[in-house]
Amino acid sequence: MLLVDSISKDLAPWIQALRNELGDDRVVSWEEVDDPTKVEMAVLWNHRKDLFQHLTNVRVVASLGAGVDHIISDPLLPAQVRVSKVVSAHLSDPMSNFCIGAVIYFQRQFDKYAQDKVTKTWDQQFDPEVQMGIGILGLGELGTDLASKLRFLGFEVHGLSRTRREVPGVVTYGEEDMDAFLSRINLLICMLPATAATDGILSKSLFERMKSGSYLINVGRGRQQVDEDILAALDSGQLQGAFLDVFPSEPLPKTSLMWDHPKVFITPHIAVVTKIEAAVPQIAENYRRLQSGRELINLIDREKGY
Amino acid sequence: MLLVDSISKDLAPWIQALRNELGDDRVVSWEEVDDPTKVEMAVLWNHRKDLFQHLTNVRVVASLGAGVDHIISDPLLPAQVRVSKVVSAHLSDPMSNFCIGAVIYFQRQFDKYAQDKVTKTWDQQFDPEVQMGIGILGLGELGTDLASKLRFLGFEVHGLSRTRREVPGVVTYGEEDMDAFLSRINLLICMLPATAATDGILSKSLFERMKSGSYLINVGRGRQQVDEDILAALDSGQLQGAFLDVFPSEPLPKTSLMWDHPKVFITPHIAVVTKIEAAVPQIAENYRRLQSGRELINLIDREKGY
Repeated sequence: MLLVDSISKDLAPWIQALRNELGDDRVVSWEEVDDPTKVEMAVLWNHRKDLFQHLTNVRVVASLGAGVDHIISDPLLPAQVRVSKVVSAHLSDPMSNFCIGAVIYFQRQFDKYAQDKVTKTWDQQFDPEVQMGIGILGLGELGTDLASKLRFLGFEVHGLSRTRREVPGVVTYGEEDMDAFLSRINLLICMLPATAATDGILSKSLFERMKSGSYLINVGRGRQQVDEDILAALDSGQLQGAFLDVFPSEPLPKTSLMWDHPKVFITPHIAVVTKIEAAVPQIAENYRRLQSGRELINLIDREKGY
Repeated sequence: MLLVDSISKDLAPWIQALRNELGDDRVVSWEEVDDPTKVEMAVLWNHRKDLFQHLTNVRVVASLGAGVDHIISDPLLPAQVRVSKVVSAHLSDPMSNFCIGAVIYFQRQFDKYAQDKVTKTWDQQFDPEVQMGIGILGLGELGTDLASKLRFLGFEVHGLSRTRREVPGVVTYGEEDMDAFLSRINLLICMLPATAATDGILSKSLFERMKSGSYLINVGRGRQQVDEDILAALDSGQLQGAFLDVFPSEPLPKTSLMWDHPKVFITPHIAVVTKIEAAVPQIAENYRRLQSGRELINLIDREKGY
């Protein structure tokens, strides 16, 4: 039995697509489960609390998307359960384009011109191109694609990954070179996966190591950012703008000071949205493999967290 | 004698740079001219009215930038005066990046999210990627560079030029195929040079031949756009958004309805700004060539207008 659960996503189209692949009686929502011990595989995205107390025989948990931190951060997840993610070649195009849009938003000062529109100000005197040294934190598949595309568009690009990688035209760093990396950039794009090591990394002490008046784009994970530190850095001028797609608490609470801050651009965690057509065949394939005892695909390393 | 004149630009850095090239006594502002008949060459950007009544011996007029319509549209410009523009390989990078930023602004619905921020709305249900068929009007050096870059980023690109050109991966059209071109796109980028033939081209009858709910980006010339038609098309839904860098009257008057329209993004004619370092050597070179009777560089065809 395959259970699909989320407290934030509209699951109807996912359940329908999985039933088309696996048959109606194999795929259930939480409301339809009569015996939770029969669930062998769970497909989750922000699942209900205490779920794993009931799923005593679950062997595989699949994420509905590329991120798995919503699964492995659950202390109730049994140690032997394997976790898979959606792998999609088509994620890099939307992710890169989103980031390029955010970079140019700051580079060509669309933020300033949006505010000038409110006051009906025609200001040509301002330098219309901000000199950008772009730093990408995390050079996985997505970070590498973005780095190459920004280079193609003529930008100066630096990239840091845990162990240093080679990307043509990009100045690369290992994690031991963080200080040098930060000192050379004035726009940071966070594309890190969610791991315990990166929690709260986007904080005061990091911003202080960048040039004064830098920009921040976060398309990584919300728990990597310290919202109060971002707001304080924007107010002090250490940061000049923040383009944030993720937040420690989502949906971003109405009480958050981010909403009213003029130097913050907010998108509701949509930089990359996994397409049902791409994800469902991968998830169904793993269910079939589980049934026939074959090796599973797209498994993550639970130690590393990605 | 070389005269530098503009009613809108800060000329001090231009005059200084030209004096560094040509010597202090060769370069004058209008205020410094004692005898206007001694001016052999004028370097202009939105020059003062009636200027050419005084410059009876001027032989060459140089634009401070790539556009020359501000010069050749002056009915007082004598027919035999030759006109030069600034040619710069470095214009295509900023122009393309500006346009890519505007495309992604609409494709990833930054317009919607900017408005959602005001109302503190976290709306994930919206499709975060608008399907884009991009049409570029004008496949000169700048249009071709943009077309190639948009293709590289994965976009579907169509391009129309007076006579059809070949650009790898881009569907191209000649001006006789305008209807087919418009019917296949939902985002139009106008990069046309200013000529009599393109005046007012961005009008109701053109918008009606595009798909309903299309987008418009104009980085061409202000006189190509009919502001009332754009506003009407935005209100009817024929257009869904307009990203405008140029206007028929600049600076855009405070009374323009563009300022208050929520579906219009305004930038103050800054998509490409000619850099002094790039322009001044070309202008100085032509002055030297004029003095020694050699052939001039970067001349435009006054018939064609570019």
